[in-house]
Amino acid sequence: MEQISANRSHGGTQGVYTHQSEATGTAMTFSVFVPDHAPEAKLPVLWYLSGLTCTHANVTEKGEFREACARHGIAFIAPDTSPRGDDVPDDEGYDFGKGAGFYVDATAAPWSTHFKMRSYIEQELPELVASHFPLDMERQGITGHSMGGHGALTTSLRNPGRFRSASAFAPIVSPLNCPWGAKALSGYLGPDKAAWRAYDACALIEDGARLPDLLVDQGDADNFLHEQLKTGLLVMACRKAGIPATIRMQPGYDHSYYFISSFMAEHVAWHAERLKR
Amino acid sequence: MEQISANRSHGGTQGVYTHQSEATGTAMTFSVFVPDHAPEAKLPVLWYLSGLTCTHANVTEKGEFREACARHGIAFIAPDTSPRGDDVPDDEGYDFGKGAGFYVDATAAPWSTHFKMRSYIEQELPELVASHFPLDMERQGITGHSMGGHGALTTSLRNPGRFRSASAFAPIVSPLNCPWGAKALSGYLGPDKAAWRAYDACALIEDGARLPDLLVDQGDADNFLHEQLKTGLLVMACRKAGIPATIRMQPGYDHSYYFISSFMAEHVAWHAERLKR
Repeated sequence: MEQISANRSHGGTQGVYTHQSEATGTAMTFSVFVPDHAPEAKLPVLWYLSGLTCTHANVTEKGEFREACARHGIAFIAPDTSPRGDDVPDDEGYDFGKGAGFYVDATAAPWSTHFKMRSYIEQELPELVASHFPLDMERQGITGHSMGGHGALTTSLRNPGRFRSASAFAPIVSPLNCPWGAKALSGYLGPDKAAWRAYDACALIEDGARLPDLLVDQGDADNFLHEQLKTGLLVMACRKAGIPATIRMQPGYDHSYYFISSFMAEHVAWHAERLKR
Repeated sequence: MEQISANRSHGGTQGVYTHQSEATGTAMTFSVFVPDHAPEAKLPVLWYLSGLTCTHANVTEKGEFREACARHGIAFIAPDTSPRGDDVPDDEGYDFGKGAGFYVDATAAPWSTHFKMRSYIEQELPELVASHFPLDMERQGITGHSMGGHGALTTSLRNPGRFRSASAFAPIVSPLNCPWGAKALSGYLGPDKAAWRAYDACALIEDGARLPDLLVDQGDADNFLHEQLKTGLLVMACRKAGIPATIRMQPGYDHSYYFISSFMAEHVAWHAERLKR
């Protein structure tokens, strides 16, 4: 692992790092914010999975998470959204290929060689950061935006007990039921929709996966709400399954970091409450 | 004036606007954050002048000012740093020409045609925003970063009574005494250094200009501190003039928005205290 940059910010260190990933077969870049802490302390961890077209940099620059993370003593990790590099296949659209890994392990050619973001996020990166940073891996939370909200929900639903808290900003709640999901999952996994269910929050809940609770913020002026995000499907799935979800429609807010940053401190506080019990 | 974008954020509206400037003879872009407010209310104003290479966008995306401005009920205005356009002359360096207007009215050719940033910031833009936004122009504060810190200090020193509060992040405190200043002011104003003194915070103070008080934050890991910024000169000038300045060296912080955003909420609160008396 190599440090690309380190900047003091909000009473902590905002670092950016790169390493050669076994899962993706490429170099991968991610950012970690570590608040100042006692010498032997191990900090709770909040994962943030980013949305379509993003890298680690968007939330790192515009997410406004550091003040809250420093105040609550929580480390914040932001991975990239896909493998990168000249030999990584891509698509002309912004919503498939590079910048659009959907946090799946691809099984269909040519994507299956490098697009192993599920293994990367679930296994490789946690092991790497646990060995390099002062983290308490018994106290992890996860959140994300849009495609990354989908990633946060599905990753926590598939790994019961690993995350003490899960939240999302404007998540894609059911790739089975939206154009972004249909394009990405058919491309990465092939046409058999049974294989898609492990990557669909609503389907996972329908199939029995559970979360202790859940916080979701969604702007009601979000252009993607009705065609792609379909928050209502998650409301119904949680209600049916008895998951005590707090799903808030935020009037006037859109899909941008102007929205995310507005509610970031509340999400960090919500995770902190669960991570520091 | 034309609206380029408007995004709801932190309980207010972050807008970006463009207009044809008489002062610069070009289109000029700026951003305004207006917190939600009572229907007839007029809000105090905090101006933020940006540094070398920046536009309105850097602080608008990375400045982390909105939460504090919304909490204190203060509007936040971020102008561009120079005229832009194909017919505007430029320099190969990042520190002169486009993105580097230094908030002066240029008198030397070819710069004097468009580089009228002093008139733009002191006269034209205040009149424009006062007529389009719910602002109380009797309650203005000003801050800025680096070249914009220089702009904030010199603009407030030259206009006694206009600003109730002035602060700066890592300001250039004396263009007369640093390479950035020497290059820019000789280019924009010609070789006669007497003409530069209106654009040098330390010289203005030496020549009798005063501020009621002053807040400055400066990172001690800032690469530009010793050659360009020279905070010590401002410390001495304020001490000699009896200006009660709070000039804080912040250990480990650099020149980036990671630094600025860390202390932005404190600056907004400091201005709010003076603007709302």
